[in-house]
Amino acid sequence: MDILVAYDVCTETNEGKRRLRKVAEACLAYGQRVQKSVFECSLNEMQLEQLKQRLLQVMSETEDSLRIYRMTQVRSRYLWTFGNQHDVDYNAPLIY
Amino acid sequence: MDILVAYDVCTETNEGKRRLRKVAEACLAYGQRVQKSVFECSLNEMQLEQLKQRLLQVMSETEDSLRIYRMTQVRSRYLWTFGNQHDVDYNAPLIY
Repeated sequence: MDILVAYDVCTETNEGKRRLRKVAEACLAYGQRVQKSVFECSLNEMQLEQLKQRLLQVMSETEDSLRIYRMTQVRSRYLWTFGNQHDVDYNAPLIY
Repeated sequence: MDILVAYDVCTETNEGKRRLRKVAEACLAYGQRVQKSVFECSLNEMQLEQLKQRLLQVMSETEDSLRIYRMTQVRSRYLWTFGNQHDVDYNAPLIY
């Protein structure tokens, strides 16, 4: 299952900056960064629940925003990109 | 059709800051801001194409990143949120 994780963390305080690092670390452990605060992950239900719990432990419910989107199609059908991209399509055929 | 627009604009220059404003203006004309650089829009194919063209005219292909996701389910099934949210679910029943 393809999952999109988007977050806004309030970094006005050092505590906020620490949360931002922790949130990015958690997302990197489960997927790839496609924009500064947007990650794409390919997860099963258990992994998704683990990621959610890990993020909930770090994020501030009053200051931060977390949005998780479930994508139900194949990537090539739901995603259109323009510009400076750094992501890898892990589902694309490996051609050497 | 529900559309998610996520962007990163390089704001190291004044030109970049101008692009950021223009990109946000364009997205606001077609949908609602749900995070700093994430918008949700409910568009038909023509409107989506118009939004894409408007964004492409403003964004830098080498410095900026634009990712547009097509959501195929109803919002309640694809979206999970936590924390500080400002969005409105236009598809939710209006209850007074």
